[in-house]
Amino acid sequence: MTQTVKEKFLDLLKEQSSYEEAIGLMAWDMRTKAPKKGMDNRSEVLGVLSEKVHEIQTSDKMKSYIDELKGQDEDPVLVKSLEEAEETYNKTAKIPGKEYREYVTLQSKAESMWTEAKDKNDFESFRPYLEELVEFNKRFADYWGYKEHRYDALLHNYEPGITVSKLEEVFPRVRKALTELLDQIKKAPKQPDPSVLEGHFPKAQQEKFSEEILKRMGYDFEAGRLDETVHPFAIGLNSNDVRVTTKYDEKDFRTAVFGTIHEGGHALYEQNIDPKLTFTPLATGTSMGIHESQSLFWENFISRREAFWQNHYELFKRHAPEKFESLPLDQFYRAINEVKPSLIRIEADELTYCLHIMVRYELEKALIGEEIEVKDLPELWNKKMEEYLGVKPEMDSEGVLQDIHWAGGDFGYFPSYALGYMYAAQIEKTMSKEIDINRVIEQGDFKQIQEWLTSRIHQYGKMKKPLELLEEVTGEGLNPDYLVDYLTHKYKHIYQF
Amino acid sequence: MTQTVKEKFLDLLKEQSSYEEAIGLMAWDMRTKAPKKGMDNRSEVLGVLSEKVHEIQTSDKMKSYIDELKGQDEDPVLVKSLEEAEETYNKTAKIPGKEYREYVTLQSKAESMWTEAKDKNDFESFRPYLEELVEFNKRFADYWGYKEHRYDALLHNYEPGITVSKLEEVFPRVRKALTELLDQIKKAPKQPDPSVLEGHFPKAQQEKFSEEILKRMGYDFEAGRLDETVHPFAIGLNSNDVRVTTKYDEKDFRTAVFGTIHEGGHALYEQNIDPKLTFTPLATGTSMGIHESQSLFWENFISRREAFWQNHYELFKRHAPEKFESLPLDQFYRAINEVKPSLIRIEADELTYCLHIMVRYELEKALIGEEIEVKDLPELWNKKMEEYLGVKPEMDSEGVLQDIHWAGGDFGYFPSYALGYMYAAQIEKTMSKEIDINRVIEQGDFKQIQEWLTSRIHQYGKMKKPLELLEEVTGEGLNPDYLVDYLTHKYKHIYQF
Repeated sequence: MTQTVKEKFLDLLKEQSSYEEAIGLMAWDMRTKAPKKGMDNRSEVLGVLSEKVHEIQTSDKMKSYIDELKGQDEDPVLVKSLEEAEETYNKTAKIPGKEYREYVTLQSKAESMWTEAKDKNDFESFRPYLEELVEFNKRFADYWGYKEHRYDALLHNYEPGITVSKLEEVFPRVRKALTELLDQIKKAPKQPDPSVLEGHFPKAQQEKFSEEILKRMGYDFEAGRLDETVHPFAIGLNSNDVRVTTKYDEKDFRTAVFGTIHEGGHALYEQNIDPKLTFTPLATGTSMGIHESQSLFWENFISRREAFWQNHYELFKRHAPEKFESLPLDQFYRAINEVKPSLIRIEADELTYCLHIMVRYELEKALIGEEIEVKDLPELWNKKMEEYLGVKPEMDSEGVLQDIHWAGGDFGYFPSYALGYMYAAQIEKTMSKEIDINRVIEQGDFKQIQEWLTSRIHQYGKMKKPLELLEEVTGEGLNPDYLVDYLTHKYKHIYQF
Repeated sequence: MTQTVKEKFLDLLKEQSSYEEAIGLMAWDMRTKAPKKGMDNRSEVLGVLSEKVHEIQTSDKMKSYIDELKGQDEDPVLVKSLEEAEETYNKTAKIPGKEYREYVTLQSKAESMWTEAKDKNDFESFRPYLEELVEFNKRFADYWGYKEHRYDALLHNYEPGITVSKLEEVFPRVRKALTELLDQIKKAPKQPDPSVLEGHFPKAQQEKFSEEILKRMGYDFEAGRLDETVHPFAIGLNSNDVRVTTKYDEKDFRTAVFGTIHEGGHALYEQNIDPKLTFTPLATGTSMGIHESQSLFWENFISRREAFWQNHYELFKRHAPEKFESLPLDQFYRAINEVKPSLIRIEADELTYCLHIMVRYELEKALIGEEIEVKDLPELWNKKMEEYLGVKPEMDSEGVLQDIHWAGGDFGYFPSYALGYMYAAQIEKTMSKEIDINRVIEQGDFKQIQEWLTSRIHQYGKMKKPLELLEEVTGEGLNPDYLVDYLTHKYKHIYQF
């Protein structure tokens, strides 16, 4: 019963995937159910298992299987798995072991320092850690290599194919269009009234509504579940176990409704990946940006649409306070689409959201490119917020300290959010040529939409790179015009200018 | 930063414990929350992680650390960890790899064949698998070695120190006493009326009562949680994350009340193990029997006691239907202690429970000792049931096919249940000399009891062998008289003979 090299390689990938499923479950558990006193021990266990994954990815065994198998087999799943494993091997092998371990320690220290600094509104106490993180990331970028901009090497981790020069083509254009749109909105004579949405929304009712909507989206509850958490997320343990979490605010139903639908979009992606990719590194979304395009597609392009509420307003009312009985759909729809620049990214409306991303992108690119220094961040942050959104933080805790990403060393991640948004608009445009989206939504049966997304996107997992997938699905490369057109059209209608 | 051999050994144990925590969480999840479609994948992941544990336990590295460290260090935790690791190594290394793998495959096949056979009441379809399992276990027993009876080698896996000759001293004596007691009970003039316990008990109310009782027992909800399941269990992931599960029958509150308290007893053991044993193989209960003594102590010796209900009946009534308002405590107490021989072990009352165990013990001992054959089991089972309990199964599904243990190859396990019961009675006797148990219970504060158990038993984990622990706690070896006395006294009072 001697194994072939191919079998050995696939076994090693399965071992890695098994640790990843265990890690995923432990992470889900920690964020939903786990008793708090067990967390210290659990963190150590997570450390041991993550170290195991790292060991496999960088093992001599892995290297030798890759070398032996490359070009020897035409099975596309094997070919792509080899590519993926090789990229991970190279990326990791380029960082000296000692530096990697120091970095892991720094990340965990920096995250806890960030939590404290944010609580105390004290950027200075966090600054030295952030400086170190930036230094590590610059060094890593140099190890990995890049053609034009050092920041490209970091972008590659989240959105392969995307570079600074590509972003510079699109981000400023989008920023200009959105800030102009925002100006018109501010001046528009007919403003929505969000106070009509106020009321008390019991958790149990919100839970029922969330479940109902997830089912309608095509989310399979036999291959997943919905739980409550503090910071909502979706997680795929395997394609038959993809869990959604949400948060219920009894004063504001929007948190759970749009949050659940957003995470549901991520979950549909993971649930519909081709089972033949199971136990390979291909059995997940192809990039952060494409993943985000799926959540934003459902959240913004479906559930913030007028047609959606034409169908779902009755269902909503059944789970809402009585006052909504007399609230006309039109007022409701306009209220849930109120545009209001805020200081906090995760509270942003769909129009200003991208502007929050631009602020972060420009700053981290400049940091990695050594055009600015960490100590300058608070001031620059506030300046850009004022320039792009017209609001200015009074404290760093609602400014530069608000997000955890940098504390975790995640430089190059933020652009994915805006890219996902642009991808989603582009995908929506293509879909609308083949499917009468409004009609399908009004009928309340999203099966057609979900099947379309599965056949074009979901099933492939990581078999296609993000830009390759985008090109195949939409017939063109990244094009931000669709997003701008969509938002312009939508908000002209809502604000009537 | 070179590691000493001791550090390397402890690291390897930590790695093993980490896999075990992950396996434990996955098992808990599968039995409480996990979506059913993900189960196939999950089983494979469990397989990979279990294989990892097995690899570590039998690794050359483990062997060399043990050999190098033995006798070199006096740290008692290290000494006991070495003993434990060595025993596992030897036990596992004695089985040829090929046979071990065949056995694992057989176990999983046999379990699924058993499920089918039980459903269809078809012993014959399960027989060949059971025969193979018996053959494997006989062979394993021979590999492991024994002095007197081949079955001793299997007993050792669950209750080290216990042998056939020890069991033969106590089991027949207990059996005789219990069957005589049962006869007297059957003939007693004053029988309890269990119909007074009937009613509708909404799940939510039962849940609240269960939580309340667990808290009173000293179960720490910040280091654990309570969930619903089909076959209740408690599981310790680490001493700060010990989870209890229970089952709610809306027609019969006894399932959840006594079930939760039983599992709570197991959980208290795991929650109170000395933290310095963390990440060693000593951080768990010392044997199946001692573990069962803790669950049975709480279930039978505390919560089926009159004093318990003197304190808790009011609390119970708050969560129970109105009819209980007018039910006198005495009638309630007698009804929950009704003795009624049943066919099914897990539904047995506290008096006849041990007789169920005797049936299984005698049969499996005879199988391993080649005094009987698998094909004779159904008939022998029914005969013994009639002889000891006075009831006879009409179908194998309520007879020899009822328990999963043999299908999993667990021969030698059943006696632990009865031993646990005897240990519990012995422990209760000792405790009663130091603590006025009735008074403590009446006051509803179990802290004294829980602390007594922690200081004498729980904290030690596997630092002491079961019989060594028993001797230290109670001042004598296994003595079944305490159990017989306890039951005789209690049931004479209830049935008034």
